[in-house]
Amino acid sequence: MAKDLEIDGLRALLKARQPAPGAPPPSREDARAAADAWGLSVPLPEGCVVEEITVGGVPCELVTPKGAATDKVILYLHGGGYVGGSPRSHRQLGAKLAEAAGTVALSVDYRLAPEHPFPAAVEDALSAYRWLLDKGFEGSRIIISGDSAGGGLTVAVTHALRAAGLPQPAGLYPISPWADLTQSGAAYAAVGERDPMITKAGLDMMAGFYLAGQDAAHPHASPVTGAFAGFPPMLIHVGSEEQLLSDSTLLAERAGVAGVEVRLEIWPEMIHVWPVFNSYLGAGKRAIEVAGAWMREKLA
Amino acid sequence: MAKDLEIDGLRALLKARQPAPGAPPPSREDARAAADAWGLSVPLPEGCVVEEITVGGVPCELVTPKGAATDKVILYLHGGGYVGGSPRSHRQLGAKLAEAAGTVALSVDYRLAPEHPFPAAVEDALSAYRWLLDKGFEGSRIIISGDSAGGGLTVAVTHALRAAGLPQPAGLYPISPWADLTQSGAAYAAVGERDPMITKAGLDMMAGFYLAGQDAAHPHASPVTGAFAGFPPMLIHVGSEEQLLSDSTLLAERAGVAGVEVRLEIWPEMIHVWPVFNSYLGAGKRAIEVAGAWMREKLA
Repeated sequence: MAKDLEIDGLRALLKARQPAPGAPPPSREDARAAADAWGLSVPLPEGCVVEEITVGGVPCELVTPKGAATDKVILYLHGGGYVGGSPRSHRQLGAKLAEAAGTVALSVDYRLAPEHPFPAAVEDALSAYRWLLDKGFEGSRIIISGDSAGGGLTVAVTHALRAAGLPQPAGLYPISPWADLTQSGAAYAAVGERDPMITKAGLDMMAGFYLAGQDAAHPHASPVTGAFAGFPPMLIHVGSEEQLLSDSTLLAERAGVAGVEVRLEIWPEMIHVWPVFNSYLGAGKRAIEVAGAWMREKLA
Repeated sequence: MAKDLEIDGLRALLKARQPAPGAPPPSREDARAAADAWGLSVPLPEGCVVEEITVGGVPCELVTPKGAATDKVILYLHGGGYVGGSPRSHRQLGAKLAEAAGTVALSVDYRLAPEHPFPAAVEDALSAYRWLLDKGFEGSRIIISGDSAGGGLTVAVTHALRAAGLPQPAGLYPISPWADLTQSGAAYAAVGERDPMITKAGLDMMAGFYLAGQDAAHPHASPVTGAFAGFPPMLIHVGSEEQLLSDSTLLAERAGVAGVEVRLEIWPEMIHVWPVFNSYLGAGKRAIEVAGAWMREKLA
């Protein structure tokens, strides 16, 4: 297999951004601001329009790539462990996905933990979905997508919208989803320090903030535990260098065994949410192309 | 989701072919002859040439679709629980895959249990692979594929050829693989009687014949237990209505965590090895198209 040189460069860059050994971690506010600053530094596709709007009481960004079909939409749910991230930090990824799918993107600024624990994020994502339906988007014209915590939230909000009796979306595209907050997977041990971004200790801490003592096994928190019969088709992207790899294989199995159409792609050498680094990585661009083609097919 | 009407018809047909309740099961010879007769009754693609040849002491069929590139080959390993099946029973599937991939197919008549227990099948598949290399096929021009037991054997022989220091194939395409002879998966219980073809009791019986007291956890018997680092890319197809579904998700996880490129597709409503029923099922034809495109890409 050809070694991907770009991923080596990205790993070096990520390492350089870590706090020095012994240095105090950044404050929550600083970490959130740094993520936003990074996201806003990545150039958007030419001609892409970003509007800040409030939908059902929830702040969102509406991203319209040049020439997008405005009757089709990706509801985008950013990552950040339920404690960070925003539509700003993930603006370029949402824009690239919308461009690839030929749609607009509605990126949700859902409330974060620890200030707003579970189920605040699910409620906000559901409000945004309801607003899309109210605005006349048919379920069959909506894809829900998200990365990391937002990838888990993609599946969790689909459980929630089904429980609420709402029409289903046309498909789900979770990227490196954190879908099992009980952290039960085999990949934690098997991948170990090959993962440059995620540690089990870090996940435990974020799960503690998000759950605030509530049950990790609730299907709106750990969506792998939910009932999948009748779920929309799913494309799952995950890297081989991820401690969260088992979240994806477990999600595939649980959904598949319930009769759901599942396509799981494990990308060698790739790290957590590598499509967000598409400006550095050819493999990030290629993943977005694959996802774009899949979303176009499901929205057709 | 649209209900697939063709699969209902196929399920009715399969049910009608079962022995009547209380009737004795067919003898081993009769079961093998019936499988061959069914396989030979399915029309081949027009202009396809089939030759019986012996390679490295192992009988095989060499299948050449009209216009095939004769420097690229699928090494095909039929299913049948290691106790049945043959290049005759799976001739049309091998021919359709070769046609879709633009290659020839070498379909291996490996020795069957209980007459020839493990590792006879692995040895014969390895002999056929060696013969391809000796004939001048480069590893990068070979895909190994197989269904059910042959899908497990696809992965098992790849462990064996790597242990022997041979060049690797360009890719693997296991269809509904039986890759874990310890039958440890969660899908047995979850899918249960939705599976019209496979029962755990049947698998236990076949595993008993094949292993003849040897260790089910040997990586050449249950290839999910092997070391996957450096393995070629894999496309895995499995139906949602399969007790063997967990074999596929476990294979994906074990290979993925070792850095292998894996694409796992779980097809809703589909049953064990549905591509072999491509003459009845549109979904069987579509799976062969998807696999053909994937194999062409890996052989390019």
